[in-house]
Amino acid sequence: MSASRYTYLGPAGTFTEAALRTLPEAATRELVPMVSVPAALDAVRAGEAAAALVPIENSVEGGVTTTLDELSAGEPLMIYREVLLPIAFALLVRPGTALTDVKTVTGHPVAQPQVRKWLAAQLPESVWESAASNADGARLVQEGRYDGAFAGEFAAATYGLEPLVTDIHDAQNAATRFVLVGRPARPAAPTGADKTSVVLWLAEDHPGALLELLQEYAVRGVNMMRIESRPTGEGIGRYCFSVDCEGHITDRRVGDVLMGLKRICRDVRFLGSYPRADEVTASVRPQMTDSAFTEASDWLTRCLDGRA
Amino acid sequence: MSASRYTYLGPAGTFTEAALRTLPEAATRELVPMVSVPAALDAVRAGEAAAALVPIENSVEGGVTTTLDELSAGEPLMIYREVLLPIAFALLVRPGTALTDVKTVTGHPVAQPQVRKWLAAQLPESVWESAASNADGARLVQEGRYDGAFAGEFAAATYGLEPLVTDIHDAQNAATRFVLVGRPARPAAPTGADKTSVVLWLAEDHPGALLELLQEYAVRGVNMMRIESRPTGEGIGRYCFSVDCEGHITDRRVGDVLMGLKRICRDVRFLGSYPRADEVTASVRPQMTDSAFTEASDWLTRCLDGRA
Repeated sequence: MSASRYTYLGPAGTFTEAALRTLPEAATRELVPMVSVPAALDAVRAGEAAAALVPIENSVEGGVTTTLDELSAGEPLMIYREVLLPIAFALLVRPGTALTDVKTVTGHPVAQPQVRKWLAAQLPESVWESAASNADGARLVQEGRYDGAFAGEFAAATYGLEPLVTDIHDAQNAATRFVLVGRPARPAAPTGADKTSVVLWLAEDHPGALLELLQEYAVRGVNMMRIESRPTGEGIGRYCFSVDCEGHITDRRVGDVLMGLKRICRDVRFLGSYPRADEVTASVRPQMTDSAFTEASDWLTRCLDGRA
Repeated sequence: MSASRYTYLGPAGTFTEAALRTLPEAATRELVPMVSVPAALDAVRAGEAAAALVPIENSVEGGVTTTLDELSAGEPLMIYREVLLPIAFALLVRPGTALTDVKTVTGHPVAQPQVRKWLAAQLPESVWESAASNADGARLVQEGRYDGAFAGEFAAATYGLEPLVTDIHDAQNAATRFVLVGRPARPAAPTGADKTSVVLWLAEDHPGALLELLQEYAVRGVNMMRIESRPTGEGIGRYCFSVDCEGHITDRRVGDVLMGLKRICRDVRFLGSYPRADEVTASVRPQMTDSAFTEASDWLTRCLDGRA
């Protein structure tokens, strides 16, 4: 039953699964690991799953640019919510292994920079070899190919391993952002701490085009949280922009920004308004509240009627 | 009967009267010269006149800053239309006077820079003395106090004088802009070649406040035609801005600018949308037409409904 199924970037036992399990509704869903971000999303597009959880930012397991590109191309999808997962690795070993026994270690290639300093300090003699995923690395330790795998602590039980060391992360406050993606729908009601995502294609590549885009946000006091350019595949110098901003599409200032972008851009894809994982309430200047918009609109009506 | 009366900056025989007489409806109105711009406008505020014609820009007879200040203070007024009058002086003399007889000349102080070069070339020996107005200068010539007066050619008949030389103007294309001012009313229908005037008071005197104001126009592709700062009388560094832009309040892009200004400014006074005297059609980028606004608004509705 597709409505009860969520796909995610597999394999089982990765940070993506851990992120998915932080969602309350995950307990009542069939969670299906997929081999890639496109596969996870295509299952949603085909109606075989209600939603898919995929990494979108600062991932330790890849998939970020793939996710951005998937959301900007093909059948439209929408972000329903986001999950922030702090990144901390455990060194998983077969039961009974001591730290001095660990000569070879493995993990996903993007995990390596996150544990490099720890390795240099604690296991300077060890040899690193990359695995297809952190979970795959754990499986290879289970099979005896390596002595230790860097993965989430949650992966230990799946592969009959033990976490020898936990909370390993070179960067403080490292986190990966995941998004739960479904088919386009009416956005969830605003919570006061929301985020709105779009993909923008510039109408003309003229000097100042990017500035014009930024001004649409700035002039309505809407904070831009993230902007990334991605090649569109239409040739050198042709980009689209993936942009997150504070606020919800039903906030007047955000709706106004979106309409402004729609006018000046060749195309705008609305990717959704959803609760911020960090639950930080948007900072709104008093000039940009819904009531300021309503008052300005009422005043314009009075001007038009000769009653200003 | 106040509805049939127009006041104007007097005295009779000045460029302001000439400008007023270019309006077709002036033929059916009682035209009443007033001693000053405030007097002309106060007659309108008091309901004693339907409208007043006063100079607002590049005047050869003064009154410009007075007009700007009058429109920004006191009971609100509205600009109904504007008149552009090319500035060209005639040298008015008593009948029979030859150019070689002209030893003393007069006129309004602001006329003098407009005729200085001509005087230096044609009457280098003549002596200039200022009069209270160009028309007053003509009267003083009639009374024999001076030999010649610089005034509009149209003033000759009123004072029994003859235009000895016409079309005197040092600056090419010199013109004065006058505005017909009445009480607030529903603005005239758009003509496609319109102008919208406002007075703006900044909410906070922070760096970038003026830039924010300009951005409200720029972000909607609305051309600003004139901006002048005027002290508000609240102390050094406190200004308001008198701004004209292309377009009509019923143009979606202009209405959007006005609402944006209303939100960020401490106060906005709408001074009217009225036909441009130069009849130049506004240049509107395709992204900023009414239909572009309507399409963007329809798209936002679809996003809100999950149908984008």
